[in-house]
Formats: sequence, structure tokens, C-alpha cells
Amino acid sequence: MVNKQVLLAQRPQGMIQFGDFNIIETITPVLADGDMLVQVQYISLDPAMRGWMNAGTTYIRGVEIGELMRAFAAGMVVESKHADFKAGDSVVGIMGAQTYAVIQGKHLTKVDASQVPLSWFVGILGMPGMTAYFGLLEKGLPKAGETVLVSGAAGMVGSVVGQIARIKGCRVIGIAGGEAKCRSVVEDFGFHAAIDYKSVSNMGKAIKELAPNGIDIYFDNVGGEILDAALLNLANGARIVVCGAISQYNASEVQGIKNYMKIISARGTLSGIIVLDYFARAAEAINQLGIWLQEGKIIYKEHTVEGIDHFASTLQMLFTGENHGKLILKV
Amino acid sequence: MVNKQVLLAQRPQGMIQFGDFNIIETITPVLADGDMLVQVQYISLDPAMRGWMNAGTTYIRGVEIGELMRAFAAGMVVESKHADFKAGDSVVGIMGAQTYAVIQGKHLTKVDASQVPLSWFVGILGMPGMTAYFGLLEKGLPKAGETVLVSGAAGMVGSVVGQIARIKGCRVIGIAGGEAKCRSVVEDFGFHAAIDYKSVSNMGKAIKELAPNGIDIYFDNVGGEILDAALLNLANGARIVVCGAISQYNASEVQGIKNYMKIISARGTLSGIIVLDYFARAAEAINQLGIWLQEGKIIYKEHTVEGIDHFASTLQMLFTGENHGKLILKV
Repeated sequence: MVNKQVLLAQRPQGMIQFGDFNIIETITPVLADGDMLVQVQYISLDPAMRGWMNAGTTYIRGVEIGELMRAFAAGMVVESKHADFKAGDSVVGIMGAQTYAVIQGKHLTKVDASQVPLSWFVGILGMPGMTAYFGLLEKGLPKAGETVLVSGAAGMVGSVVGQIARIKGCRVIGIAGGEAKCRSVVEDFGFHAAIDYKSVSNMGKAIKELAPNGIDIYFDNVGGEILDAALLNLANGARIVVCGAISQYNASEVQGIKNYMKIISARGTLSGIIVLDYFARAAEAINQLGIWLQEGKIIYKEHTVEGIDHFASTLQMLFTGENHGKLILKV
Repeated sequence: MVNKQVLLAQRPQGMIQFGDFNIIETITPVLADGDMLVQVQYISLDPAMRGWMNAGTTYIRGVEIGELMRAFAAGMVVESKHADFKAGDSVVGIMGAQTYAVIQGKHLTKVDASQVPLSWFVGILGMPGMTAYFGLLEKGLPKAGETVLVSGAAGMVGSVVGQIARIKGCRVIGIAGGEAKCRSVVEDFGFHAAIDYKSVSNMGKAIKELAPNGIDIYFDNVGGEILDAALLNLANGARIVVCGAISQYNASEVQGIKNYMKIISARGTLSGIIVLDYFARAAEAINQLGIWLQEGKIIYKEHTVEGIDHFASTLQMLFTGENHGKLILKV
């Protein structure tokens, strides 16, 4: 089978460039015992990918130059030499940015795509949905009546965090870039208020106006100045849950956070969410998110781009903020 | 009674200057019901004082210009109009930087100075000792066999944190400035190793050499570059306990921490210690620290300067690192 693969060509300097990736064609190898051939149908584009393109190991090792770009994806089994799977099964896993994956069955999870679109399993029912679910509930520990601030609120993770917080009885404020996104945060996702960071000159004051008694939970997807502004507005006992720092991923020099001592004076804690740690509890999140989706309590939007040739330019959209909804490459 | 008082004259720009304080003489007022007249004997000089000199409120309000400088102190009751105290009692509390305090009895705590020097109640048996005790045990949660890194290790809080960690069966590494302090950290306070930040060019590497498997607890008294270097060396599940940021208190611009995302990838948490929150449990700390002192398991050193006229220059010593042991002004 002819397989188009996206390889890491060079480590990006600053913003991702087209030339950071090579697209090549290969022939899929013959399957060994335990292997499966999967037709990749939906590739998830996630902020974490920018980190994977760097050298060295953080919570996961960096992709090597010349290696297949790591990507979470959903697809259909074409051929199986693994007892647990058969042709036609829908599967998800870290299959990489390619059109066909030859992969051991143990690295994949079978999903039931009869009730919901398969693409949902790389979004709301996949890693990003689980990140929002476990990040807010296990690290943020929301209680009814608390005030929750979410950055990247129009994004995949942020929009779900805000909606779960609202379901839990919290007052929810979102931060997003631009009027259209802020409108969507309030009207589509049901946040109580939104702050447009692109039109606000003093983010610390803007937060204070909407949360005069301070923020009980800050769920951070962006880092940088917005994180520093949030730290100026902590209520006593605040929990800061760091999920990402998308404003910093392409920066040549990372901006340090200056107001971390505010965490101390507020008797707060800062911790993070690494969704890999919660894979064993995936069923719990998928089940609960599925119920909320059915009940209409959670709204989920996808932004789909077609064609693996557009991998680099689509990934760029994440960092320029052009996407509206979960960004997915349809293969 | 003639009373010498240290007033805040102006808010410091950068390092504390002599002119930031005024020393005046007043006459103590006549006691009202519930009041006591206390002869102040030992004034505690603490890094937190630098924060109290700034405008605004953090965990406590800033001292106003022209107001008596806030200070924790120990002294002897001269005259009492409060039923719980009598002349000759030893007391501690926030009495301010002055030679005599007229203060309501409810703001003071009686201590038994028959077994140990009264000065200990502003040091090892006072706020700094309690900061070390509760900060390490309640926030750091040390377990035997873990590796604990302590900055400001020759200082009052740091030296006690390290000794408690050693008592709890941890491997303890201290960071201090200069060869003499590092020797004291190991030889006097029984740390397993010490790093001289003044002679090390790459702090991150220096920590890694001594803790190749990473740091389980980092107890931070200094902030700035040393905190950032520690964050590069976290073991999985690390607890960062921030007690202070003495390297930053006199800085005109605070240095942001750049490596905070390492807390996330290490599944760590950052939190702080505000000793005021533990005052209700003071007896527990004083009792346990007293036992360890008696058993010789904790060594405690004081650095005493005489004369309230030297308040400003003595306080400066804290920030230049000139003191060896808990810095106390003997009135």
C-alpha cells in the first residue's frame, strides 16, 4: 500500500514553517504477528505537537529529525494480524501523521463509532476531551459557586473545561482572542463572560472587573502575560492548573512568570495535567462526556481541513489562532 | 517611659538604605484596660520585613510611611492591666521595632523562658522555626529516602528545614553562598552535601551531579535563577515549597521563572508556606523542635547585634548574606 508520511525535516526556529516537514511516499511493510494495517482517517492537531518537535525529552521524548511526526489519529483497520482486531474495526492511537499505519495492536484502542462520528475520538472523546475532564476535575477540584477562569477558552480544551465548570455550578470566565471567539465562548459554550485579550490593554484589571473576589481556579492553556495577569487575581486557596503555554511554544525566549509569589500569598497551588497519566481511566471520561453531549450540556465544534499535504499549514493555524473548534486533518 | 521607635521613613528603592527608617524618641502612653507595657529585649530580623516595607497588601498589609516598623519580638512585661499577665512574664508577639511596647494582652503569647534563652522564641521556637517545621512537613510531605534540596541553607529557615528533612530520613542538599557557609551547612547542620552558588557557573548541572535522579522536594528561600535551576532537576511528583524569594526582594524588576512548565512535565506541584496560617498549632511545633534541640538532632545558631540604633544596617545584613545564623537585634 502506498503510504504518504509527514517526517520532521528540521527543528523549528520560532514559528513552524512549511520546510520543517517533509512529505514522502513509501510502501507499507508486510505485517508481522500482532501487527495491523490501519487506514488513517482523522489526524488530531494539538498544541503539544510543537513541544514534540523540540530536541530532548520532557514528559515524552522529542521526535527525531527524519522520523515520522508523532500524531494522535483515528482510522479503520484494513488488515489485522492481532487477535483482538479485525478489518473494519474503528481504532484510535498514536499512529503518526501518515495515510496508513502499520502498528502493533497493543498500541491501539478499539472505539465504537456507530453512535458518534469517528473524528470525535480524537477530540471531545479523545485526548483533548480527557485533558479537559481530568484537568479540571482532578486538579482544579471545582466546587459549586466558585469562579473559574479559563484561557484559550474558544479552543478545544478550554471550551470543554469551561462547560464542565458551568455544569459543576461554577461561574466561568473565558479569555480568547478576538470578538468572534469571545462571542462564541459566551453564546455557544455558555461561559458567563469572556475577555478579548487582543482588545484589552490591562489584562489584570479586566479580570478584576469580572472577578472582584478573585479566581478560585485558573485553567491555563496559554502561559506568558495572561498567566501573570491571572496570578494577580487569585482568591484564597486558588488552584492553578497548567495545561499548556501555547503563547510560548514558538517563542525564541520563554517569558518567565513574575507573579508566582502571588500563589504563595493566596495559599494557592500550581500543578499541571498530563493526560497520559489518565489513560487507564479513559472509559470514565468518555462515558461522562458522552452523556453531557447527548444531553446538550456540552457543545463540541470541529474545524476540519482536508488532505495530509496541508499538515504544516494546518498545524500553523493552531498557533495563529485561526481555527474555530477542534482542529482536525481529514486524510 | 522613654521609648525609642523605628519608623518607616520612605519606601525603599532596591536595597534597604539607612534613610528608609527614622529613629524617634517618644514617651509611652498611660495603659488602658487590657494593655501591657513590655520591655522589648529581642527583635527578630526576617526577610519578610522587606515585603512589609512595600505599599499595598499581600498576605498582610504594608507598613505605612511614618508608622512603627512591624517586627516580631520577645520581651518582659513591666506593667500589666491584663488579667492573664503580670510584671516579669516573658512574652512574644508582633511588638514592632521599639524599645518599649504598649500593646493589648490578646496580641501577645506568654512563653516559658526558664529552660531556654528568651531569644529562641523569635528564632527556632518562633516564627522562623515554625515556618521550617510546617513548611517542610505540611507542604513538602517528606518521605524517608527522598532527596530534598534547600536554598538559603545556612539561613535560619533553611538550616532547620534541612535538619528536619535529615531527621525524616531524607538525603539533603543545601545551597548557600560562599565556602564558609557551605562548610557550616554540612558540618554544623548535617546536610549530606552543599552547593556554593557563588562559585558554581551552572547551577542546573551542579544540582544534577548531586541528585542525578532528581529532587523530590525543593524548599525555596531565594527565588530567581536558583529556583529556575532547581526546576530543571525535578523528580516525578516533586513538591516545590516556596517560602521566600530573598534574591528578588530588593530587585527593581523581578526575574520571572522560566522553567515552570517543568513542574507540569514532572507531575509536580508548587505551593507556599505562610506561617500565620499555622499559629493555632504553634505548641505542636515548639514541643517537637524543643525535643530535637534537647536531643542534639537540631543545631541552632544565632547572630546577635546589639542596639536598636543599628536596625537598618542589621536588616541589610540579611540581604547581603553577611549573617551567620538567625539574625537578632538585642535591644
